[in-house]
Amino acid sequence: MKGRSYSPVSFADVKITGAFWRERLEVVLKRTIPSQHVKLSEAGILESLKLPRPPPPLRIPRNAHGFTMQVFWDSDVGKWIEAASYALSHRRDPGIESKIEAIVDDLVRAQSPDGYLNCWYNGREPENRWTNLRDNHELYNAGHLLEGAIAYFRATGRRRLLDAMERYVDHIAATFGPGPGHKRGYPGHQEIELALIKLYRLTGDRRRLDLAAYFIDERGRQPHYFTEEALARGDDPASYWASTYEYNQSHIPVREQTKMVGHAVRAMYMASAMADLAAELDDAALKSACESLWRDVTTAQMYVTAGLGPKETNEGFTEPYDLPNEMAYAETCASVALAFWAHRMLHLDLDASYADVMERALYNGALSGLSREGAHYFYSNPLESRGQHRRWAWHVCPCCTMNVSRLVASASGYFLSAREDRLAVHLYGGIEATVSIGDRKVRIRETSDYPWSGDIRIAVDPERPAIFDLKLRIPGWVKGATVAVNGEPVAPDLVRGYATIHRIWNAGDVVALHLPMPAERLYAHPNVRMDVGRVALRRGPLIYCVEEADNPGDPVQTLALPRSASIEEKWRDDLFGGVMTLTASAKRLAPGDREEALYSTTPPAIREAQLTALPYHLWANREPGSMQVWIAEATRE
Amino acid sequence: MKGRSYSPVSFADVKITGAFWRERLEVVLKRTIPSQHVKLSEAGILESLKLPRPPPPLRIPRNAHGFTMQVFWDSDVGKWIEAASYALSHRRDPGIESKIEAIVDDLVRAQSPDGYLNCWYNGREPENRWTNLRDNHELYNAGHLLEGAIAYFRATGRRRLLDAMERYVDHIAATFGPGPGHKRGYPGHQEIELALIKLYRLTGDRRRLDLAAYFIDERGRQPHYFTEEALARGDDPASYWASTYEYNQSHIPVREQTKMVGHAVRAMYMASAMADLAAELDDAALKSACESLWRDVTTAQMYVTAGLGPKETNEGFTEPYDLPNEMAYAETCASVALAFWAHRMLHLDLDASYADVMERALYNGALSGLSREGAHYFYSNPLESRGQHRRWAWHVCPCCTMNVSRLVASASGYFLSAREDRLAVHLYGGIEATVSIGDRKVRIRETSDYPWSGDIRIAVDPERPAIFDLKLRIPGWVKGATVAVNGEPVAPDLVRGYATIHRIWNAGDVVALHLPMPAERLYAHPNVRMDVGRVALRRGPLIYCVEEADNPGDPVQTLALPRSASIEEKWRDDLFGGVMTLTASAKRLAPGDREEALYSTTPPAIREAQLTALPYHLWANREPGSMQVWIAEATRE
Repeated sequence: MKGRSYSPVSFADVKITGAFWRERLEVVLKRTIPSQHVKLSEAGILESLKLPRPPPPLRIPRNAHGFTMQVFWDSDVGKWIEAASYALSHRRDPGIESKIEAIVDDLVRAQSPDGYLNCWYNGREPENRWTNLRDNHELYNAGHLLEGAIAYFRATGRRRLLDAMERYVDHIAATFGPGPGHKRGYPGHQEIELALIKLYRLTGDRRRLDLAAYFIDERGRQPHYFTEEALARGDDPASYWASTYEYNQSHIPVREQTKMVGHAVRAMYMASAMADLAAELDDAALKSACESLWRDVTTAQMYVTAGLGPKETNEGFTEPYDLPNEMAYAETCASVALAFWAHRMLHLDLDASYADVMERALYNGALSGLSREGAHYFYSNPLESRGQHRRWAWHVCPCCTMNVSRLVASASGYFLSAREDRLAVHLYGGIEATVSIGDRKVRIRETSDYPWSGDIRIAVDPERPAIFDLKLRIPGWVKGATVAVNGEPVAPDLVRGYATIHRIWNAGDVVALHLPMPAERLYAHPNVRMDVGRVALRRGPLIYCVEEADNPGDPVQTLALPRSASIEEKWRDDLFGGVMTLTASAKRLAPGDREEALYSTTPPAIREAQLTALPYHLWANREPGSMQVWIAEATRE
Repeated sequence: MKGRSYSPVSFADVKITGAFWRERLEVVLKRTIPSQHVKLSEAGILESLKLPRPPPPLRIPRNAHGFTMQVFWDSDVGKWIEAASYALSHRRDPGIESKIEAIVDDLVRAQSPDGYLNCWYNGREPENRWTNLRDNHELYNAGHLLEGAIAYFRATGRRRLLDAMERYVDHIAATFGPGPGHKRGYPGHQEIELALIKLYRLTGDRRRLDLAAYFIDERGRQPHYFTEEALARGDDPASYWASTYEYNQSHIPVREQTKMVGHAVRAMYMASAMADLAAELDDAALKSACESLWRDVTTAQMYVTAGLGPKETNEGFTEPYDLPNEMAYAETCASVALAFWAHRMLHLDLDASYADVMERALYNGALSGLSREGAHYFYSNPLESRGQHRRWAWHVCPCCTMNVSRLVASASGYFLSAREDRLAVHLYGGIEATVSIGDRKVRIRETSDYPWSGDIRIAVDPERPAIFDLKLRIPGWVKGATVAVNGEPVAPDLVRGYATIHRIWNAGDVVALHLPMPAERLYAHPNVRMDVGRVALRRGPLIYCVEEADNPGDPVQTLALPRSASIEEKWRDDLFGGVMTLTASAKRLAPGDREEALYSTTPPAIREAQLTALPYHLWANREPGSMQVWIAEATRE
């Protein structure tokens, strides 16, 4: 099966030419990644790699459970290296490279002779390493450092950090596993599994894949490692602050899990690793577990923005259809990681429904985490606000900041996949790439104004004539897509959502794809009690919202949209460098003659109003104000 | 002015004969109050009065701020004595009396020679008394013990506890105040002010009133006492866990407060004391402050159930119109205390709008805190549930349990007020009382099936013919009330919501009052964003809800009520001993052909359904299930 499955075309091989993602990429390269280095320095995170004796006072006080978030700091460094290395893949930059080299100097210096590398433990409590996998995230940190090392090696060929991390991985493999003398541990926060699979794909060293598979399969087995480990520490396992092992998805073995529970980011990283392993190991049972979880998340637990995890206390999942809007946690990291998972599911099965979710996460729940100017962030992404939400310049737990920068810096890696006789195009928006399809090199140039327009032109230029399937995703939201090749309409087979054009491709061939993208109303499943009587607006891949900046006056929650009102598109050059807004004749509920009465038998008066919606990911970039994704439908039209 | 203002007729002088309150009263007397004594014992609260050396381990562990709720336990004892004494006023009971006497034995033994009486401090840290008024509630505890002592004295004439408490009050008066050598402190949790005013009314000792006025007026002055006190303890005032003094309404002097902020119960106790003081001292400025706060609460911060305080973290107020339904905190104590405040406002100005809120709190937000069988409670009273809410048999902070029992046990005290030439009837529901109006004794017998029926008969029997105004409240929700005297229709003046009948009353006179109470729809102010497109049902003083037990199948949130649907009344003998339910032809939203899709361009299918609503206070007395007060209006009829 392996030889016949798709591989993503690396972001480094796909140049973004389209305006939408080009703008985001430029902002991330020029503003976000450099400013994150400044913030890492100001927050003491870079300093924490230097291991002075005695260690300096904590920057983040311990909480009631004796815990400080400083134990995660290595992961932030790893994620910044990864994002910065993606930037280097776009264009080398001696300034960034010297900053990474300085960090590598510190990390190499901090590494123990036996390969162990964790700046918290080596700096502050070396005697306690590997005693609290549940809470203290050594394996999580290792995973992010490893992803950073791989990205840096791929961008620059420099392997000093990669070598250090391979030694650390050797140490980890010697410490954990099913064999005699091994600890049967696994991470409290999944992440290293993904990194190990990346390392396997880089080096071909099968042991890395096996270790990832071990961590995934050991998870949730009895006797429960986190219980045993707590007892060994002298702690009462019952005093676990999160109370249940659902929190970190270790309540039962992963293959038995059918409902997504607990901390959303952990869940998504785990599911991503499961999908990778199912593909690499051709493991039908693991694939089936992925599919069950996918179905659960996408049919009962996902916001319309592709946000995940409604609840703050566990940063995660609750119950089916429990999707509060104003209180939505919907962590940026969770939507980023949902894109990771969807991308991997797509490589288990080329089915456009996976790409639909991936695209929704990219354009909505993930992208909303980054401000327009590139240096402010949302950690949680509510679907409604009374104006109290502000983007942060930094966060005490800055995980989301580098998750969104590494995603945007590698966004072009989500556009294309290839196998020996096929090329699949998942996303649109303007790219150029030269792809190997079997033994042929094919130059692909997709030009479009996507996501603003669904008119897409794909120039296919094989180095010499080549037979292969060009598979063009037809998004699930499209009705009436048309395809033409060299100006001639064609009616390609639609195979699981991909229009499949089989032909001999010649230099100069041009495919024209038309994806109608009228503005549409979306309705939630009636079991989503918060959205009963409400409607969301979508155009193409973008979910819209109404924001006070465009709808001044009373809170936007007083707007009501009649079901019969037509939704007009209005291009606004003056907003955010150009954006398609949606407008409609709507109603405003007003107190009317009830005056100030809080409750009245008189329904609110209704006056005519104009409603203007803009893409959700753009909200909270102007003056603070109310915002809403799920707009009330007018009760009388 | 004093001589010309109304005084409430004490509950002890008003016998409840009507079915509705009689049933609740019997349950509280027979079941609630005895079972609360058992629970106080089981929880270790009674034991905590005994002050063994060394003190036993804590029953409630300290939280992250080093705080244990055990410091409040005296207040629970005081409130139970108060509730139990109200029971004794209805009928003496040697069993209850011996339990109170045992507590009094302990309290008298625990009292310090200087009069100080606090079982936490005397038992565990006598050296720290009066060092943390902000958090540790010595004055709050004193207030509740004093209210208990007054109630016990009134019920039985026994004054051992009252004497002890008067000595404690002397000690408090010697400790706090504006004079030289006094601490300029005041309670972190308001309550003692109310108790001191009750003591003044009992004994006529003006010093008690002055001390209450001092506590109220000192509150929020600069230099801020809680800041000074924290510094004196060696604490950093900035590390106050609640962060701001809005939490306990000490951010500015109370007379300058125009917005109700912070912890709702503290706010209500404070406002109640302010209203009492405004009346006793004929203080127009204080009355004006009360009116500003009243207006703020009732026009922007009160649930339709008369619940107060949407937020859990401060157990209190947030912002105007911020009234989330499922997340509503709406503590039982806050609605109980709103009834206290409304009752006092009514005695500042006989205006039916105060009685409307008092009645709404009594019948809805407060009464919902007690289960039908009388031994389970709600601490918070949400207006929506997905079925996760359960009544508690007890609570780690049992404040609400005794607040609801003392309220129900004294409910008949909210029905009548008198002054020398007037008798005001605020509430209906079946009472008998003999009231002094000027120098005449007048027997009043009100018979009705209220709140189920608005047909009310009031027999007025003066001992000899008497001229006075009978003032009958016409609730704000009534349209088309009619009044007849001895069968003859009359058209009395409506003075601030009270139909005022001035005549010579003779034995045998009968007033018939008809208050039409059709079921009606209520709409929230459109700024209450959670309730846009939603409707609540009300009949008479009762707010209704839909509960899954009566509306089986999908969650009740899928019900939608067309605006044109007529609401039918249906008496149900089989439910809770008889209850008026409301039914309507409604719609159920169903997934329809969208199958399991979470979001769809297809609106939910709509099928016909029957909706059954029952009074909100009765919810969660059957099998757990979804519940909703604010029902979606059907978007198409």
